[in-house]
Amino acid sequence: MRKTASAARNRDPRRIRPSRKTLSPAERYDANIDHILRAAAFEFAEKSFGLASIRDIAARAEISFPRIYYYLRNKEELLYLIARRAFDQLRQRANTRLAGVADPEARLRLFIESHLGYHMDNLAEMKVLVRESDTLVGAQAADIARLKREYSGLCRKILEQVAAKRGATLDRGQSAITTSLLFGAMNWFHTWYDPARDGGRRERIMEEVFRMAVGSLGAR
Amino acid sequence: MRKTASAARNRDPRRIRPSRKTLSPAERYDANIDHILRAAAFEFAEKSFGLASIRDIAARAEISFPRIYYYLRNKEELLYLIARRAFDQLRQRANTRLAGVADPEARLRLFIESHLGYHMDNLAEMKVLVRESDTLVGAQAADIARLKREYSGLCRKILEQVAAKRGATLDRGQSAITTSLLFGAMNWFHTWYDPARDGGRRERIMEEVFRMAVGSLGAR
Repeated sequence: MRKTASAARNRDPRRIRPSRKTLSPAERYDANIDHILRAAAFEFAEKSFGLASIRDIAARAEISFPRIYYYLRNKEELLYLIARRAFDQLRQRANTRLAGVADPEARLRLFIESHLGYHMDNLAEMKVLVRESDTLVGAQAADIARLKREYSGLCRKILEQVAAKRGATLDRGQSAITTSLLFGAMNWFHTWYDPARDGGRRERIMEEVFRMAVGSLGAR
Repeated sequence: MRKTASAARNRDPRRIRPSRKTLSPAERYDANIDHILRAAAFEFAEKSFGLASIRDIAARAEISFPRIYYYLRNKEELLYLIARRAFDQLRQRANTRLAGVADPEARLRLFIESHLGYHMDNLAEMKVLVRESDTLVGAQAADIARLKREYSGLCRKILEQVAAKRGATLDRGQSAITTSLLFGAMNWFHTWYDPARDGGRRERIMEEVFRMAVGSLGAR
């Protein structure tokens, strides 16, 4: 089941249009924005942010070129909305999974599963996030930096709890480095993950990331 | 000393021109190519491959626009040469460090130091390599993929040796995953490494990567 859902998420938006049948106007607006952001993520992933055009994004989303400006002002805003949506979803997903779980190692495992699962199901968005991490400027950049800090802070706190349980104390410098390295291991992922070849190894990949993270945390 | 060398390598090529005094014509050619590749790496890192222009690269390298075509045919060739030079240097550097060292864990530590040290000293090149990893096509892409495979194969073999020493056997799938995750942890690096802030923590960052790698390898 999971593999099918993942394949659907990663499918080119040209082939999946939102259903318009039973939606209220507000829902239809959200569904359209969502559809446009998916199309934009695919264009940015394929051509890079710099070379993608709003015209191509509109074509991929099957929406008219003038009409797309009803939803956004410019390309930067698209990138900002893609990033904001991704961090919102990542945080929501992690919080839902972690709710009611107290054991630090179980929490770390769930966090990794949540992050990597999102990554596997949203390869275009993650590629864009990784590649264009310093494209935004000003207030938009500051807002994304804040979301990123909050999200990685969640991971950092879990790592500190795991270390404490294992009789070690991580100072701030140490936990910052370990958190960054762990996100590196996970975010590098889209460069080598091939759903056709590795789809069946999802659990194993997650297990290896977990082993790597806890392996570095014991008493020293 | 090391910090100074690192700062010099990361310095904008606009401010360091090759010395022309005592060079033979062949040496001067090599020095000029090297200088152009540095300028191109800075332009690609700053503006992305798609948006950078050969005109800007020539300006940054302080070479005339027509004259730059004496050294290269097009922008793709620049990207190819940057990547080839980086993998050549990475491999050479690793082999030099590893020569005569037999202990697997010492070898792993040296490999990590070699890779991360290169990364720290060549932030623009590494950013370009990571960001434009799928920009090249055809024979150039195949050639870089081969160099990358050889280089990461060196790391993979060391990881297998470390596991063997610790009484574990890594099957091929497992060692491939661990190698990819380790490179992820290391290659994510330029997104958060700040030479001004983290320059003094180089050894510590390397140590944490080492701990992460070996932590995941023990008997299971």
